[in-house]
Amino acid sequence: MSQTLQLHPDRLLPTDPGTREVARRLYAEVADLPIVSPHGHVPPAWIAQDTPFRDPTSLLITPDHYVTRLMHASGVDLADLGVGRGELDEASSRAAFRLLCEHWPVYRGTPMRLWLEQQLVEVFGVEEVPSADSADRIYDAVAAWIARPDARPRTLMDRFDIEVLATTDDPCDDLEHHRTLAEDATFTRSVVPTFRPDRYLEPAAEGWVGDVDRLAEVSGQDTQTYAGWVAAMEDRRDFFRARGAVSTDHSHRDLGTERVSDSEAEQLYAAARAGRIAADDGDRLRRHMVGEMVRMAAEDGLTMTLHPGVHRNHHAPTQATFGADVGADIPLAVEVTRALQPALSAHGTDPDLTLVVFTMDETTYSRELAPLAGFYPSMRVGVPWWFIDAPGSIRRFRSAVTEIAGFTRTSGFIDDTRAFLSIPARHDMARRLDCGFLAGLVAEHRLTEEEAAETARYLVATQPKEVFGL
Amino acid sequence: MSQTLQLHPDRLLPTDPGTREVARRLYAEVADLPIVSPHGHVPPAWIAQDTPFRDPTSLLITPDHYVTRLMHASGVDLADLGVGRGELDEASSRAAFRLLCEHWPVYRGTPMRLWLEQQLVEVFGVEEVPSADSADRIYDAVAAWIARPDARPRTLMDRFDIEVLATTDDPCDDLEHHRTLAEDATFTRSVVPTFRPDRYLEPAAEGWVGDVDRLAEVSGQDTQTYAGWVAAMEDRRDFFRARGAVSTDHSHRDLGTERVSDSEAEQLYAAARAGRIAADDGDRLRRHMVGEMVRMAAEDGLTMTLHPGVHRNHHAPTQATFGADVGADIPLAVEVTRALQPALSAHGTDPDLTLVVFTMDETTYSRELAPLAGFYPSMRVGVPWWFIDAPGSIRRFRSAVTEIAGFTRTSGFIDDTRAFLSIPARHDMARRLDCGFLAGLVAEHRLTEEEAAETARYLVATQPKEVFGL
Amino acid sequence: MSQTLQLHPDRLLPTDPGTREVARRLYAEVADLPIVSPHGHVPPAWIAQDTPFRDPTSLLITPDHYVTRLMHASGVDLADLGVGRGELDEASSRAAFRLLCEHWPVYRGTPMRLWLEQQLVEVFGVEEVPSADSADRIYDAVAAWIARPDARPRTLMDRFDIEVLATTDDPCDDLEHHRTLAEDATFTRSVVPTFRPDRYLEPAAEGWVGDVDRLAEVSGQDTQTYAGWVAAMEDRRDFFRARGAVSTDHSHRDLGTERVSDSEAEQLYAAARAGRIAADDGDRLRRHMVGEMVRMAAEDGLTMTLHPGVHRNHHAPTQATFGADVGADIPLAVEVTRALQPALSAHGTDPDLTLVVFTMDETTYSRELAPLAGFYPSMRVGVPWWFIDAPGSIRRFRSAVTEIAGFTRTSGFIDDTRAFLSIPARHDMARRLDCGFLAGLVAEHRLTEEEAAETARYLVATQPKEVFGL
Repeated sequence: MSQTLQLHPDRLLPTDPGTREVARRLYAEVADLPIVSPHGHVPPAWIAQDTPFRDPTSLLITPDHYVTRLMHASGVDLADLGVGRGELDEASSRAAFRLLCEHWPVYRGTPMRLWLEQQLVEVFGVEEVPSADSADRIYDAVAAWIARPDARPRTLMDRFDIEVLATTDDPCDDLEHHRTLAEDATFTRSVVPTFRPDRYLEPAAEGWVGDVDRLAEVSGQDTQTYAGWVAAMEDRRDFFRARGAVSTDHSHRDLGTERVSDSEAEQLYAAARAGRIAADDGDRLRRHMVGEMVRMAAEDGLTMTLHPGVHRNHHAPTQATFGADVGADIPLAVEVTRALQPALSAHGTDPDLTLVVFTMDETTYSRELAPLAGFYPSMRVGVPWWFIDAPGSIRRFRSAVTEIAGFTRTSGFIDDTRAFLSIPARHDMARRLDCGFLAGLVAEHRLTEEEAAETARYLVATQPKEVFGL
Repeated sequence: MSQTLQLHPDRLLPTDPGTREVARRLYAEVADLPIVSPHGHVPPAWIAQDTPFRDPTSLLITPDHYVTRLMHASGVDLADLGVGRGELDEASSRAAFRLLCEHWPVYRGTPMRLWLEQQLVEVFGVEEVPSADSADRIYDAVAAWIARPDARPRTLMDRFDIEVLATTDDPCDDLEHHRTLAEDATFTRSVVPTFRPDRYLEPAAEGWVGDVDRLAEVSGQDTQTYAGWVAAMEDRRDFFRARGAVSTDHSHRDLGTERVSDSEAEQLYAAARAGRIAADDGDRLRRHMVGEMVRMAAEDGLTMTLHPGVHRNHHAPTQATFGADVGADIPLAVEVTRALQPALSAHGTDPDLTLVVFTMDETTYSRELAPLAGFYPSMRVGVPWWFIDAPGSIRRFRSAVTEIAGFTRTSGFIDDTRAFLSIPARHDMARRLDCGFLAGLVAEHRLTEEEAAETARYLVATQPKEVFGL
Repeated sequence: MSQTLQLHPDRLLPTDPGTREVARRLYAEVADLPIVSPHGHVPPAWIAQDTPFRDPTSLLITPDHYVTRLMHASGVDLADLGVGRGELDEASSRAAFRLLCEHWPVYRGTPMRLWLEQQLVEVFGVEEVPSADSADRIYDAVAAWIARPDARPRTLMDRFDIEVLATTDDPCDDLEHHRTLAEDATFTRSVVPTFRPDRYLEPAAEGWVGDVDRLAEVSGQDTQTYAGWVAAMEDRRDFFRARGAVSTDHSHRDLGTERVSDSEAEQLYAAARAGRIAADDGDRLRRHMVGEMVRMAAEDGLTMTLHPGVHRNHHAPTQATFGADVGADIPLAVEVTRALQPALSAHGTDPDLTLVVFTMDETTYSRELAPLAGFYPSMRVGVPWWFIDAPGSIRRFRSAVTEIAGFTRTSGFIDDTRAFLSIPARHDMARRLDCGFLAGLVAEHRLTEEEAAETARYLVATQPKEVFGL
């Protein structure tokens, strides 16, 4: 009745037989290299406490909006997938898992299917295709795996050969989990924090006053003034660096970095503290603050990653019921050239600055990002992210960026995921696709196979360390 | 002297031999399935009255701006192609047809060439390539076909196996042709109207007051007030539904759905009725009205298709001489995420709402449309339309959309044509390309061939009925 | 130690073996056709005076921002590449050349690599791959070539078989070099000027008043008034036409062509002359002036090329140190449909007007440019330019444009380069890619091979002459 689930060794490689031959050889060079994951959302507590996984649904479905959103689009209530419900009883977990298996066909052609398949086969040893029929058996197999004593984050860090894993953290976080890990001599992998200060840079947003009050508490700086805010941010960046951070991450609607005068910054800041800043003034102050973050990055050397252009919480009722990060965020068009001009004109050739711009607006690759990264030594083009971390998009990215900026001006792969078990599958997909792209250049006689192999290794093993100062 | 015209059985299939083998098998599964055409512009009178065709030029050239615009760009006067001239005498018809044959090389690489070739071979039995030399012989062959007693729309509905054909109709239309067809027991095909209310939703446009006056007449509602306008629209939607309509269609410059308050709507409406609404207020009221159409669609279940972003009548002298719909309409960039947010936040999860967004701005596929359709159960991504209903564009569409939203969140193919005889060729092109795309996924080991075949059948036979509630 | 440098005869052709076979045959038809270069930046003095080349670095690196910008992005100071330094001593020239060879890997996947390789092999007879090891030997080989008596621009015009070469010139230029060449009976090639009036059309820019004063001097027209400006421009266009010019070239931030009233034009012009025009009024007057250029083009028949949408001198310190045109220009998004509407509605069907729009915003190809060129007989879609004159971009261009506008509505290839020795490699790349695209259409049975061959020849030999009235 049920169909056999198998991973084809040539999956995602080019279809032309001659090109595939080359791609296979290139892929063999990098398939087993360690994973460097310099940007993601795995909770550090999992690793620090070596937390056992709970149940198949909370492991594979509930927290992963990549997976839940397509079921939601197919008419499934997010609550039935465990979203917003805390710990699930076994019946609910099993029912949610069944929903995934029943909806298996809606994932055809998506990367989520590829990532889930690879986890099912390689982690859980599942050998049948998910379906209504196989759902319970697969659930049982995953549950049995979870019950194994070696099904723990730290064991998996080794098994997956994750050399470095970056988490994403609030500037006010005490980073105790990171300290625990750093001080644990038995833990030989590296887990580093990332400074993510978005909320402190949106002076017109609800809750901002309370946020900068907390910032004052943890930093010991008086955030009643703009100068104090600057000092507090510098203080927390120093703290993060001391705890191993290599980067800061920023996600605002636009990429603006235009500065206002010092006195205007103080005035706008004072208005925001008083809770009476207008939305457009809030944007102006935020762009000034982002510009200030670029200045700090040029001084302290933390790599600065930018993930702009998302309309968060697009569906108000979903936000009201389930909160944020549940799949209701939708990309927006992004402008780069004008927005980054003030920051790049001021700091674009500073030797310690690294600025990585990610986008889901593919139009910016050849038009703005590659030309910028092809001139400014501080600029890197981020690999495809979120919705476009997918085979066709990755091919379009390489095609659009490489001809203008080569291979050396990109970011290296980042998985950006909270789905810990999917990390190897995501990196594997990127490696296969980059090898396929390189094989195409070889087949067109634009590169020798030796150069392609060297480039494949560079993209996996060298570039992420270079870009994130690891 | 003349060259043989042949249709290659593998046309448009992938060039890699292994992938082509798979594509051939997939295509064989769907090549002969009935045609479902849920959006188009064939005049219902043709079918109701089984109108004989007049002459080769008025059949294949004059009304088809896809064909005429490239000759116009090549220096041919639209009048010489019969545009704006009513019935042509035989010399004029023949001269226009000769222009097409002489300009055959300008269609190289375009879908118009593919569609015309398929009609020439499969409908008219022509066996030579159009050229100055062959023009008269081909004209004669087409004219001879037109003279045949079975060269009639109803016979062709059967021969082409068109199961459902939707027309596009004014809300004030009496839909008598649709009634005639519905009541004709000898007619076993389905021809349904589509509610196209654009002109009634542009309160600042010339003629709007007269339009809503007519609306009052046919609906019996007093359209002096906004509330009356709403009631009139609901009345006409009910009438269309009773006559078999399954959808409404909308084409404004932008996709805006932001609402104003009820009192402001009444005020703006009153100003529009008095003929003194400003252009930007007209846009605001129109966006409110479109939002209201979404509300009605969520209630009465008519699928709502949106075809935004066209600068109509770009060349003023052409409009003055020949009127609208003659090839002088040019696409514009479109914004989706912000524009649809009000309507989707209000109705995006309503179970009876289906919203299909078509675009000629390909940048929106991966950036906005697929993410929206990958979350909202009401949203569907429309297949490539008009200028981009073409092989490369269709491939780019599937590549950009599938990875984010899968296959189940698209619209199914629509031909959107007034060229009745081209309908089979258009559907055939889409089937070949979708099978080629699916074959590529099989060749990359992302889908099994069984899954691909099931998906190919789903896209042709199931999806359009599902999306249009057929 | 060093690796052999070879040019593969099949480079850049499609990878599918069957398609490659067709592409090879198509390419053989056009590989040796003469070069027509209707838009570029080679200094006319080089040809007129048959100037010997100086040294390898000033020949291949310093003036070519395509080459220097990627080294700058890799941390090399532009000064170390000779930028802004005038004549280099041998040690500096050799050191700069060594930098290029050491940075050879950063060009992987770029067209710069392809162009440089082809020059190294075909012009200089170099047989080893650039590297730190081979740098000096390659330098010596190039230097030895430079010392040869036949290493002169005029000999190369013959050797490269450049039939026509257009330069880019200031409206106030006396075009003496062009006269010299035209009157030299021993020079059988054609070198024509191009009218590039940007600076005279930016009334709010620094230096504009001085510019139009110079314009008054050379034209004998009083440029104190707008009417005088119009007369002066007409006078200089006539002068350029008399010296052989076939086109004018325009590069402003946007494509706007909206006119103001005559009286407003005079007022704005007077304000600009008085040095007190606001930036936005400067833009309005500039758009009016561009509209006026379209009017003149429709009357005097000079082809009008538009290269819009570049943020010039993005990095202020680079501009301060090195000036313009050194790689710090970054593209911007461009809008076409609305911007050109005034000019096209007024002149779009004028029989003597040819308007060629180039873009680095690839989104405009299928959305705006191809639909415009597919209707207006005056419009042509320019081939990929500058950053996107590259294999993948050229393929995307043909894919996006051809299906809507066919092959006849494009511009023919332009190299747009100041790197004289790279001209054959650039044209060769375009020929290979167009043949590959055509071969793909043959392989998909959309064209016969005869049609494809005819189209390949048309694109190389006929189209540029047709578009530029040569």
